[in-house]
Amino acid sequence: MTKITKAACIGGGVIGGAWAARFILAGIDVAMFDPHPEAERIVGEVMANAERAYGMLTMAPLPPKGKLTFVKSIEEAVQGADWIQESVPERVELKRNVITQIDAAADPKALIGSSTSGIMPTELQRDMKHPERMFVAHPYNPVYLLPLAELVGGEKTAKATLQEAKAKLAPIGMKGVIINKEIEAFVGDRLLEAVWREGLWLIKDDICDTETLDDVIRYSFGMRWAQMGMFETYRIAGGEAGMRHFLAQFGPCLSWPWTKLMDVVDLDDELVDKIAGQSDAQSGARGIRELERIRDENLVGIMHALKSGDGGKGWGAGKLLADFEQSLWANAKKPETDIGAAQPIGILETKVNAAWVDYNGHMTEHRYLQVFGDTSDGLLRLIGVDLEYVRDGHSYYTVETHIRNLDEGKLGDTLYTTCQVLSQDDKRLHLFSTIYNAETGAKLATAEQMMLHVDSKAGKAVPALPAVLAKVKAIAEAHASLPVPEGVGRAVGQKR
Amino acid sequence: MTKITKAACIGGGVIGGAWAARFILAGIDVAMFDPHPEAERIVGEVMANAERAYGMLTMAPLPPKGKLTFVKSIEEAVQGADWIQESVPERVELKRNVITQIDAAADPKALIGSSTSGIMPTELQRDMKHPERMFVAHPYNPVYLLPLAELVGGEKTAKATLQEAKAKLAPIGMKGVIINKEIEAFVGDRLLEAVWREGLWLIKDDICDTETLDDVIRYSFGMRWAQMGMFETYRIAGGEAGMRHFLAQFGPCLSWPWTKLMDVVDLDDELVDKIAGQSDAQSGARGIRELERIRDENLVGIMHALKSGDGGKGWGAGKLLADFEQSLWANAKKPETDIGAAQPIGILETKVNAAWVDYNGHMTEHRYLQVFGDTSDGLLRLIGVDLEYVRDGHSYYTVETHIRNLDEGKLGDTLYTTCQVLSQDDKRLHLFSTIYNAETGAKLATAEQMMLHVDSKAGKAVPALPAVLAKVKAIAEAHASLPVPEGVGRAVGQKR
Repeated sequence: MTKITKAACIGGGVIGGAWAARFILAGIDVAMFDPHPEAERIVGEVMANAERAYGMLTMAPLPPKGKLTFVKSIEEAVQGADWIQESVPERVELKRNVITQIDAAADPKALIGSSTSGIMPTELQRDMKHPERMFVAHPYNPVYLLPLAELVGGEKTAKATLQEAKAKLAPIGMKGVIINKEIEAFVGDRLLEAVWREGLWLIKDDICDTETLDDVIRYSFGMRWAQMGMFETYRIAGGEAGMRHFLAQFGPCLSWPWTKLMDVVDLDDELVDKIAGQSDAQSGARGIRELERIRDENLVGIMHALKSGDGGKGWGAGKLLADFEQSLWANAKKPETDIGAAQPIGILETKVNAAWVDYNGHMTEHRYLQVFGDTSDGLLRLIGVDLEYVRDGHSYYTVETHIRNLDEGKLGDTLYTTCQVLSQDDKRLHLFSTIYNAETGAKLATAEQMMLHVDSKAGKAVPALPAVLAKVKAIAEAHASLPVPEGVGRAVGQKR
Repeated sequence: MTKITKAACIGGGVIGGAWAARFILAGIDVAMFDPHPEAERIVGEVMANAERAYGMLTMAPLPPKGKLTFVKSIEEAVQGADWIQESVPERVELKRNVITQIDAAADPKALIGSSTSGIMPTELQRDMKHPERMFVAHPYNPVYLLPLAELVGGEKTAKATLQEAKAKLAPIGMKGVIINKEIEAFVGDRLLEAVWREGLWLIKDDICDTETLDDVIRYSFGMRWAQMGMFETYRIAGGEAGMRHFLAQFGPCLSWPWTKLMDVVDLDDELVDKIAGQSDAQSGARGIRELERIRDENLVGIMHALKSGDGGKGWGAGKLLADFEQSLWANAKKPETDIGAAQPIGILETKVNAAWVDYNGHMTEHRYLQVFGDTSDGLLRLIGVDLEYVRDGHSYYTVETHIRNLDEGKLGDTLYTTCQVLSQDDKRLHLFSTIYNAETGAKLATAEQMMLHVDSKAGKAVPALPAVLAKVKAIAEAHASLPVPEGVGRAVGQKR
């Protein structure tokens, strides 16, 4: 059993709240304990951001949301939970106490992960009765979008625990990465801390300001690191001779006077004022909420871009997203009830996301066809044209499409689509889809499409397989009594 | 005069070759000097990669390519050049000698940039007669895609030189970032060196292997840094209280034992073997050429994603790309000759890029409409519907589209499009566009579209302005003698 059935979140700040959002959006109930008076508000804001982000991230059907319950104690929170995530403030004593309490109250088989960004798990599991199931699961902000969790075991952690944790993170779209040996700050924060220290010196010594430093990162190696890490990037830089050549070429730099890292900068009031002031000058024109929104939209866009990577197979976080979506589709309940009804079938709901709009915030022309394509894909899935069917060499191809643009979709609008089967035969499937604005009910666009069933290897039209045809016919018969929608059979420019 | 008219590249490895590609693709002639026997081959390969990448990066019309000439001496290379870029191997004496020779032979007003990744410009300009025009312009691999150049002046560099260099990089799509004070390794390589040193320790101490380290980067902060740098990211992490709160919260970590950076790792044979071996295990299944291809496609995808950022206005490197494209459109010669001819107008040429295909390598449905949308945009630009016209509140909206899918576009195919005006009146414009495979001449798809001229603020149809109407009429009259293309006036599913 690799699925989490119930989660507990102890600590509900930005990190704990985003863990809760991950669980809830994956359909898992969460019990949350946080004595902070503002905890419900903070978690609510994180949840809203996460729901907005998921609306843009995927058209795959998310499972029904899990239930979030705020409870009054650690003991109450962990009852029945099989994953317990600790995200309280970063103090050893506090975390150890909380984890010891969790241990005493929880099922002895429940996994206990700590969100600590630097404390060694051996320190945290010291007083536990069942320390073998405790480990660090260190995530990155925003946890609901960035997939990484560094998994680190302490002296008493069972090896199988880390494997189990990794397996349980996959169905919620996360990438568990097991770190061999525990050290303070693990791997990611070691690297970040190195950059941070060096960066502080650069600001203190007036080599550059915070905006220049950020520009240096984001116009260059930041874009490399979104897809490949440091070693794979340098392997390429080494050219045909690869990594060994790179090491020979750049190894000597290690002994050059290229760093002040041996000294630790004194973060005194003067330096704090300087950094805060420069940061205000750089980013102060936008509020934190706006920056969060932009960050999340950009992350979604980057993941979408990577999902198309490697010739459509997906790369890095984009491959992970594709796998996640595939599991969502596989687990989605087929809306069987719709199929036999004499009404157009509701296919999908989605949001107009930032990558879909022009500089006026209007949905661009081809995104309508993208939504129509996803709609016909949704219908095909209903009639049994799934990944397996396609892999076996059969598919429906679109040969003709007539789109009418009736109204405008705008950034953030929620859309839903319906699909009606106009007619069908062994090879042909004649569809009429409509995109609606979910709030106003306005029709934004309609598409009349002719699909042809093909043997994709032979590249020619052949009859659909019997199981698919049976379902198509059932829908077509149910839809036969529907009125022909306005717009069917039109040629471009024809008078109404 | 902020444009480079002729460039010289001294040194033609991966970096020098990619500088040459940047210049040439921006329409600037390049004289290249490199005594290496393989220089022409290496530069040729970099050029091929760059051309492929630009084909995917933008549909904006690149200017006619500059001419690349290999010459026999530094003296010959710098004749007539107003930007000279030095990219010879990273040894102070060698670089200083080359730069001194460049200085002696070049026009005293020509800018001289060094690609050094760490040497201070004061060291390099020591023996120059005209040191005030010399500076570091440190780029990042691949130079033809990553826009950053760190601009660093030495003691004798004139301040105006850095401003001039920055202004001259913008028209070739690059982001010149001026560094306040010179130090070894400047800003970017300081940050990279810090990560590199820490990373070497993590590998040496068996905390993780190279693949795990890369995964830690690319599934987490790598995606943050592709869009915002370190300080803006942490500003968000500080929440509503911003940067000051973040510093208060994470400042103390600076004194924790989170780093081995004070020691410099000994890159001995054992460690070199270990890293090279782990890197082979991680990436060895793909050749360097394949990794380069994937990297470039991902970079293009990430830049496209960022171009849609901030509600369509563009963010970071995507905003830069949008600005670059706007200048390309502004500088493009209008193909006036085509307009009056009795033939469909050739509008654009593009490549099927990695983000456009499904896992079978076939162009996805909505990308055809994207190309048709770019085609009608291209026609609109020809008749005077440009950014200014749209900003002033007028535009053509698509109200109806009929697409026929006739053949398949595949990854890497070169496509071109034509557009024919079928009819027009004051408000309406009836177009027929075709996408061809440029190599085979096959028709991939056709689109019949009805566009309506609107007052975009009032949201209603109004007559187009007289200058636009005059051009539309001229085209429509020239096209009146053309046969009506096959497929015009069709309804979906109609018999032929």
